[in-house]
Amino acid sequence: MKKWIFGAIALTLGAPYSSALADEGMWQPHQLPDIKEQLVAAGLTLNPDDMSDLSKFPMNAIISLGGCTASFISDQGLVVTNHHCAYRSIQHNSSENNNLLANGFVAKTKQEELAAAPGSRVYITESLTDVTAKVTDGISAELTGSDYYQAIENKRKVLVAQCETNGDYRCSVSSFHGGVSYVLIKLLAIRDVRLAYAPPSSIGKFGGDTDNWQWPRQTGDWAFYRAYVGKDGKPADYSEDNIPFSNKTFLKVNAKGVDEGDYVMVLGYPGSTNRYRTAVEVKNTFTYSYPTAKSYRQEYIDVIKQNSAPDSDERIKYASNIAGLANYAKNYGSMVESYNKSDMLVRKQSLETDLVNWLAKDTQMNTKYGASLVTLNKLIEQSDATKERDLLMAYIGRTTMMSVSKGLLRLSHEQAKPDAERERGYQKRDLKGYEQSLASINSRYVADIDKALFKHFLAKYVYLPADQRVATLDQFFDIKDTDLTKANAKVDKMYADTKLGELDTRLAMMNMSEKEMRASADPFIQFAVSQFDYNMAQEKLSNSLSGKLQRVRSEYMKALLAFKKSRKEAVYADANSTLRITFGNVKGYSPQDGLRATPFTTAEGMLAKYIAGDDEFDLPVKLREAIQAKRYGSYADAKLNSVPVNYLSTLDITGGNSGSPTLNAKGEFVGLVFDGVYESIIGGWDYDPTYNRAIHVSSPFMLWVMDEVDGAENLIEEMEIVR
Amino acid sequence: MKKWIFGAIALTLGAPYSSALADEGMWQPHQLPDIKEQLVAAGLTLNPDDMSDLSKFPMNAIISLGGCTASFISDQGLVVTNHHCAYRSIQHNSSENNNLLANGFVAKTKQEELAAAPGSRVYITESLTDVTAKVTDGISAELTGSDYYQAIENKRKVLVAQCETNGDYRCSVSSFHGGVSYVLIKLLAIRDVRLAYAPPSSIGKFGGDTDNWQWPRQTGDWAFYRAYVGKDGKPADYSEDNIPFSNKTFLKVNAKGVDEGDYVMVLGYPGSTNRYRTAVEVKNTFTYSYPTAKSYRQEYIDVIKQNSAPDSDERIKYASNIAGLANYAKNYGSMVESYNKSDMLVRKQSLETDLVNWLAKDTQMNTKYGASLVTLNKLIEQSDATKERDLLMAYIGRTTMMSVSKGLLRLSHEQAKPDAERERGYQKRDLKGYEQSLASINSRYVADIDKALFKHFLAKYVYLPADQRVATLDQFFDIKDTDLTKANAKVDKMYADTKLGELDTRLAMMNMSEKEMRASADPFIQFAVSQFDYNMAQEKLSNSLSGKLQRVRSEYMKALLAFKKSRKEAVYADANSTLRITFGNVKGYSPQDGLRATPFTTAEGMLAKYIAGDDEFDLPVKLREAIQAKRYGSYADAKLNSVPVNYLSTLDITGGNSGSPTLNAKGEFVGLVFDGVYESIIGGWDYDPTYNRAIHVSSPFMLWVMDEVDGAENLIEEMEIVR
Repeated sequence: MKKWIFGAIALTLGAPYSSALADEGMWQPHQLPDIKEQLVAAGLTLNPDDMSDLSKFPMNAIISLGGCTASFISDQGLVVTNHHCAYRSIQHNSSENNNLLANGFVAKTKQEELAAAPGSRVYITESLTDVTAKVTDGISAELTGSDYYQAIENKRKVLVAQCETNGDYRCSVSSFHGGVSYVLIKLLAIRDVRLAYAPPSSIGKFGGDTDNWQWPRQTGDWAFYRAYVGKDGKPADYSEDNIPFSNKTFLKVNAKGVDEGDYVMVLGYPGSTNRYRTAVEVKNTFTYSYPTAKSYRQEYIDVIKQNSAPDSDERIKYASNIAGLANYAKNYGSMVESYNKSDMLVRKQSLETDLVNWLAKDTQMNTKYGASLVTLNKLIEQSDATKERDLLMAYIGRTTMMSVSKGLLRLSHEQAKPDAERERGYQKRDLKGYEQSLASINSRYVADIDKALFKHFLAKYVYLPADQRVATLDQFFDIKDTDLTKANAKVDKMYADTKLGELDTRLAMMNMSEKEMRASADPFIQFAVSQFDYNMAQEKLSNSLSGKLQRVRSEYMKALLAFKKSRKEAVYADANSTLRITFGNVKGYSPQDGLRATPFTTAEGMLAKYIAGDDEFDLPVKLREAIQAKRYGSYADAKLNSVPVNYLSTLDITGGNSGSPTLNAKGEFVGLVFDGVYESIIGGWDYDPTYNRAIHVSSPFMLWVMDEVDGAENLIEEMEIVR
Repeated sequence: MKKWIFGAIALTLGAPYSSALADEGMWQPHQLPDIKEQLVAAGLTLNPDDMSDLSKFPMNAIISLGGCTASFISDQGLVVTNHHCAYRSIQHNSSENNNLLANGFVAKTKQEELAAAPGSRVYITESLTDVTAKVTDGISAELTGSDYYQAIENKRKVLVAQCETNGDYRCSVSSFHGGVSYVLIKLLAIRDVRLAYAPPSSIGKFGGDTDNWQWPRQTGDWAFYRAYVGKDGKPADYSEDNIPFSNKTFLKVNAKGVDEGDYVMVLGYPGSTNRYRTAVEVKNTFTYSYPTAKSYRQEYIDVIKQNSAPDSDERIKYASNIAGLANYAKNYGSMVESYNKSDMLVRKQSLETDLVNWLAKDTQMNTKYGASLVTLNKLIEQSDATKERDLLMAYIGRTTMMSVSKGLLRLSHEQAKPDAERERGYQKRDLKGYEQSLASINSRYVADIDKALFKHFLAKYVYLPADQRVATLDQFFDIKDTDLTKANAKVDKMYADTKLGELDTRLAMMNMSEKEMRASADPFIQFAVSQFDYNMAQEKLSNSLSGKLQRVRSEYMKALLAFKKSRKEAVYADANSTLRITFGNVKGYSPQDGLRATPFTTAEGMLAKYIAGDDEFDLPVKLREAIQAKRYGSYADAKLNSVPVNYLSTLDITGGNSGSPTLNAKGEFVGLVFDGVYESIIGGWDYDPTYNRAIHVSSPFMLWVMDEVDGAENLIEEMEIVR
C-alpha cells in the first residue's frame, strides 16, 4: 500500500560514504541502500534495503503525531510516544478531582481509554513522491524576491490540493536542501486517538525544567495512545463503534534493553536543522545574534527582578516569562559555549574554499554555480546590515503595550480583507486564540515593569548607528542623539494614560475598524499608528529578501551537493519534519576534562534526586519502595545491579524526534528518545561526535514501572515482549 | 635532636585495626606502628616504625607555617607549600608596578629572594610530650563549669611557659579526644623566611572562587619559600648575613607523579574536625543549625540585592560580603546535601547503643562512665534550648551598626582593665587591627542596606518562642508580641540620627571611657548600653557551659576509647593542628548516578577553561602556547597524552593540610594537597569513602610549569628529581 517513489535526485553512490560522518546524519529512507555497508558494519542485522520500504517493517510502524514521533507497539493500534508529547491529552482529561497529570492513568481495558485532546492525530506516511520538476519547471529565471517565493508557493498549493483527495489524507510538499528538491508527502490521518496509559508526571516529567537538556537524567518520559478507525478500517471521527486500527506492522519490545556500545537507531520526524548554513551565517549567529540575544534576555530578567520583590504578586506574574527567558538564555549560552570550543567555523570555511576551488576547475559548473556562494553571502550581509536594530526592536516589541497595540491595529487592518487574504495569525480561525491571549495579559502584566523594560531597551536604542535609527520612532518620542529626557517623560505619561491595561478596552478594540483605531486617543494605539507604514514597509522588504535568499540558497546547495557527490560523500538533508533514520551506538562522553558521563542512570540515582513534595523531583511512594527493596524482578541489569533508567547514545536527533522509538540491530524496541545533553543544544547547527549525545528512556525501565508501579500489566500482555 | 615521647595513653593494639576504616583517619606519628599491616598492605614500602620518628625521614621534613603545612624540598632550606598559603607574602611584595600576584615571581638566585610577609614563620616540630598527668592531676572532681576550664587553662599556661626557654621556640599544650590526653608540643620557629618562587595567580589560583571545592580542577596551587637562620644555625631575625637552613632531611621529587590506584599519603597539620560528636549534636547541626544558617545567609544576600541595583556603588560595597555569605551558604548546603544522603546519624546512634550496652556489662566501667553520654547530651540540649534565639541574634549582630556599637562599648569596658586581663580582641596588640577594621567600614557600609538587614532579622525575631525573647531588646524597641510599628520607626530614626557611619566618630570612641560611652547620645551606643548587662551575663553563662561540656566530653571520650580498644579498633583523634598522617589511593569517584569524576585533569582541560582577561580563568600566554603545541617534554603521561594537572585521592584531610606534601609509597614527593571535592565539605564531621576525595596538584605539572613556563630551572636543579 505504501510506496516509495524517488527519482532523479537520489544520490546513488558507488562507494561507501565518508567514515568522517559516522553517527552524524538524519537519513531519508531511500538513502539507506547507499549507506548499507556502514549500517551493517555498525551492527545492523536488518536488511537496509527493506528498511527503505515504507510498507515494510520497521519503517511501516513509525508514525507522526504532528510535532512529535510515535510508533505502533502492538497489532491493536497501541501507540507509544513521550509523556511530553501526550501532555496536552493527559491535561485535557484531568480535573481537580481526577488529576491524571499528578496520578497517572492506566486504562485497564480498551473501554476505559479516554479521548485524546481535540485535534490529536496519528499520521501514517503513506507515500513520498519526488515532485521537484512539477514545482520548479516553468518558473522564470527572471523571477526573484517575493515573486519567486509566491510562484513556488502556488505550485505547492496546487499539488497539495490534488493530493488531498478526501478528508482522511493530509498532504504537503516538503523542500529538501533549501529547494534543491521537493517531495510530496501523503499522510493518512487517523483522528480517533485515545489515551491508554500515562505514568504520573513525577515519573513522566521527573526532573522538570531543572533537568531539561541535562545529564545525568532519570525521566520516565513515555505515554501510550491507541489509534481507532471506523469499522471499514478507515479514519473516522470518535465513536464508540470504532475499532482499534490494526497496522500492518508493529515493534516488538526487547525487555533487556541495551548494553554499552550496542548498535541503536532512531526512526522519526526531526523538525528542523541548519547544518548547511554558510560560514558567514554561522559566524554572525554565534558571535553576534546568540550572545546578544542571551544578554538581552538576561537584562530583561534583571529589569523584571529589579522592579519586583521576590515572591511579590508582581514577580509571580512574571514567573513564567522569567522561566522562558532563562531557558532560552541557557540554550543560547550553551550554543555559544559549544561554538567557542568547536572548530565548526573553520570546517565551514575550508569546505567553502574546497567547493570554490572545485567549481573553478569545471567551466560549465563554474558558470552555473560559481557565483552562488558570493551572491548568497551578499544577501545574508544585506539582511545583517541592520541586525543591531532588528534584534533591539524585537526586544522593544516584546513589551506588552508595544505588542498589544501593534497587534490590535494590525488586526483592524487585516479584518478589512477577505478572510483567505488576511495575514496568518489574523484569520477567523485565529481570533479565539487571539482573544484568549488578550485575556491572559491580566495575569502577566505589571505596568511599572513593562515601562521599565521599555525604557531599558529604548536607552540602548539611542546608541544605534545613525543609519539604523528608526525615523518614525525618533519623531514620535522626540529623540535627538542620545537624550531621552523628553522620551522618558512621554513614556511615563503613556503608561499613566493608556487604557490598554484593561481587558475590556483590549477586547473592544478587537472589533474596531482601522479608521476607528486610527482615531483612538490611547497613546499606545497612537504610537502604533505612527509606526504602521514603517512596519509594513519593513515586512515587505523582509519577504522580498527571503524570496531572493531562497532562490540563491537552492543554487548554492546544488553546487555543494554536486561537490560532495564528486567526493563520494553521502549527504543528508537538513531536518524538515519528514521521516528520517539516524544510527549509532550506546556511548557515554566526557562533558569536560576530569569528568565522564557514564552511559546509564539507575533507579537508585532517581531515588537519590527525590525531594518529597517538590514540583520537579517528587516520586510516587510505590516507586520509592520498590527501589528501596530492589524489587527489580527480571528487569535488573546485572552489571548495574539496578534497572537502567535512561541511557546515552551518539544518535543525531533534534526537536520532532521526541517520542521516536529507539531500535536495536534487529529492529526491536529498546526505548524512546526524548532529549539531548547540554552540549548537544548546538546540534541544530553542528554535530560534534565528541559531545553530541541523545538521551533515551530504557525499555526495561518502562516495563518495570508498568509491571511493578503503575499496574499496566494488560499493556505488557498486549505487546510482544522479547525476553 | 627531635624526639618522640609518648607514654600511657598510646593505644597499642594486638591486632590490625578494622578494615572499615580504610582511607579514613588522621593518624598521629606514634600510631603508625599500630597500623603497620594496613600501611604495608596499602603499598607503603617505607618502614612505618621509622615514620613515627620525628627525627627521621620523612616526618622530619614536614613543617608548619601556622595554619598551613609545608615541607623541605632541598638540603638548602627550600620549602614548598600552596600558593594560597604564601598568598600574603606574594601580596606583601607586590606593588602597582611590580605585581607579583599577577606576574608571578622567580628568584633566579638566592640574592633575589624577597622577605616573606611580616610574621611569617617556619615551624619544625621538635618534640611531642605526653603531659596528661601534669595537666589533669590535682584538679578537684568538684570543679566544673568555668572553674574547671580555668584550672586546666592555668596548668597549660605553666607548661608552655616552662617550655619556651627562649624566643626560638614556640610551645603549646594540645588537647586530644576532647581532653582525654594532653601533649606538649615544642616547635622550633624559624623567623627569616623568604619568597623564592610563586607562579602567576592565573596558574596558582586558576579557577578562583568558582572552582573552589570543585572537581574538575586545574589549579597550580604552589609556591616556594626558603628558610634562613643565623650563621650559628639558630633562628635569627632577617639579615643579609643569614644562611639557608639545612634541615636534616628533605623530600625527593618524583617527576612521573602518580597513576590511578597508587598508594599516596599526606603528612601535615590538619586544623580541626568534629568526628566524635554525639548523635544529638549531629542531628541538631544538620537538621537545624546548618540549614537555618544557610537560609539566613541567603536571605542576607537577598536583602542586600533588593536594596542595591546590580553594579551600583552600593552593590559593589557589599560584593565581598555577598561572596563570603554565598561561600558559606554553599558550604552549609553541601553539608546538608551530604548528610541527607548519608547514614551518618544512624551510624552514630548505633555506635552509642553499642557503647552503652558494652558499658552495662562491666560494673566498674559503668559506674565510671555509664552516665557520661546522658550527661553530655543533657548539656548539649541545655545549650540548644535557645538555639533559635542564639542564631538569630548572631545575624542581627552581624549588621554593621550593631557590631560597631557593641564592640566600641565593650572596648571602653575592657580598656579599664590591666592589659593582660582584657578579653581577647581588646588587648593592646589588637588595637591596630581594630582601628583598621573601623576604617574599612567606610568601603563596605551602606546605611539603607544595613537598616534593611536589621529590620529583616528583627521581623523574624518577634516570632521567637516567648521564653527565648530578649527582654532588654523588647524594652528598648517597645516591641509587644509581633507588632513592629514602633520598633521600625525607632530603627529609622536611629539610622537617621547615628554618627557611627562617620569614621571620625568611630575612631574618637576608641579612646572614650566606659562612662563617656554610657553618656553618649548616639542611638546605637544607647542601644548597646541597654543590652550590655544582658550580653555580659549571656557570655558568662556560655563560658560556664563550655567548661562543663569540656569536662563531661572527656569522660565520654574515655569511655568510647576504651570501647573501641576492646574491639581492637585503632582510633585517631580529631584534628587539632598537630602533625598527622593520612594514607590511601589515587582514585576517582561518582559524584552522582550517571557521572564519574576521573582521577586526573589535563593541561588541555585547563586551556579549555581559559577566558581571556577573566579574574579567575585567565592564563599566561606562555602556558597556552606550550599546551597548544603540546610541548610537554618528559612530563607527559602517555595514557593521558598530556601533563596531569590535578588528581584525586581518597585521603582524609581538612583545613590546615593545605600545602602538605603528597608522598608515594617510597616517600617521594608527588604533589601538594590543596582542596577537597564538593562532596567532601562534610569531611569535618564524617568521612564517607564513596564521596570523600582530596585534590592534589601533580609533581609533573609543577616541574613542567617551572621548566617550560616560569623559567625556574634553578630550583629544579637544586631539588633532587627522581625521573
